[in-house]
Amino acid sequence: MELKKAILERRSIRAFSEKPVEKNLLKELLTAGIYAPTAGNIQPWLFFSITDPDGINKIRTISPGMLSDPKALICVCSDQKKAFERAGKGGKTLSLMDCAMAAQNIMLRAYDLGLGSCVIRSFNPNALREIVGAPDHIQPELIVTIGYPAENPDTPARNTDVIYREEYGKKEEGK
Amino acid sequence: MELKKAILERRSIRAFSEKPVEKNLLKELLTAGIYAPTAGNIQPWLFFSITDPDGINKIRTISPGMLSDPKALICVCSDQKKAFERAGKGGKTLSLMDCAMAAQNIMLRAYDLGLGSCVIRSFNPNALREIVGAPDHIQPELIVTIGYPAENPDTPARNTDVIYREEYGKKEEGK
Repeated sequence: MELKKAILERRSIRAFSEKPVEKNLLKELLTAGIYAPTAGNIQPWLFFSITDPDGINKIRTISPGMLSDPKALICVCSDQKKAFERAGKGGKTLSLMDCAMAAQNIMLRAYDLGLGSCVIRSFNPNALREIVGAPDHIQPELIVTIGYPAENPDTPARNTDVIYREEYGKKEEGK
Repeated sequence: MELKKAILERRSIRAFSEKPVEKNLLKELLTAGIYAPTAGNIQPWLFFSITDPDGINKIRTISPGMLSDPKALICVCSDQKKAFERAGKGGKTLSLMDCAMAAQNIMLRAYDLGLGSCVIRSFNPNALREIVGAPDHIQPELIVTIGYPAENPDTPARNTDVIYREEYGKKEEGK
């Protein structure tokens, strides 16, 4: 699929069909994730790919933001040890942004492969860390829910009134 | 360009040619930016598109992370008023992630259009806010430098040892 099409047409999907997500497709999504840029190329992250229904249910229980019944999850975590070693306290914010860019790559690639996805931050990170058995320096940042879409929502209107040229208040000519 | 190609081949570019960036291309990048998802679809952001050499020079002066001579900049800012109204204090982190996803869209689309880009967080946000004349609730989060590439760097190796299945320590079969 053309990149432009994926960017403009991707939608957050919150209703999924029963069809499971093939493992080779999940692998494609994870590859897209790790090709996002990271500050200083330290790749301060860890990804969990979860398709076990029991695991998904546990994570749903601690994720008020998960309003769907996804067939797969990718949990995008920062590695605070790697982030701190490179950038000190500033590494926290940098690794958060790195994880967000990885999630965006994952969601675009999901749409490209005919999958639906939605990114969630409303969950209990400590509980999630325990569920996947990760050590303390692994910080769950985002969950991407994945499945075959069972809805086809409209693209919500974008506010184009948020773009200035050169300085605050100055719009494109003719706007 | 195919989405997959853009994701795998995009590189951070730090050397740009003298050729200016056409305004219609910058518009395409900004459109890509605003099509990123935002928490609750509040679009808590503001974008500055800067091509005036004097403006770029001023911003370079307060951006130690800008190791290049870009022909255009897109400053991605969060709107802390919108973010707070919707999500309280949590809006700060959410809007930061929204901005990072927008930046990733912008960089992918830049590569798609034959442009090079690099994302920067190492700058003085208060000084940048003053340069563009933005009010206090507008928080500069990222700068994307843009221009026609004058280098063709190799893709740095990706660590694939950061992907687990179901739980910590459990790798793909055969890995």
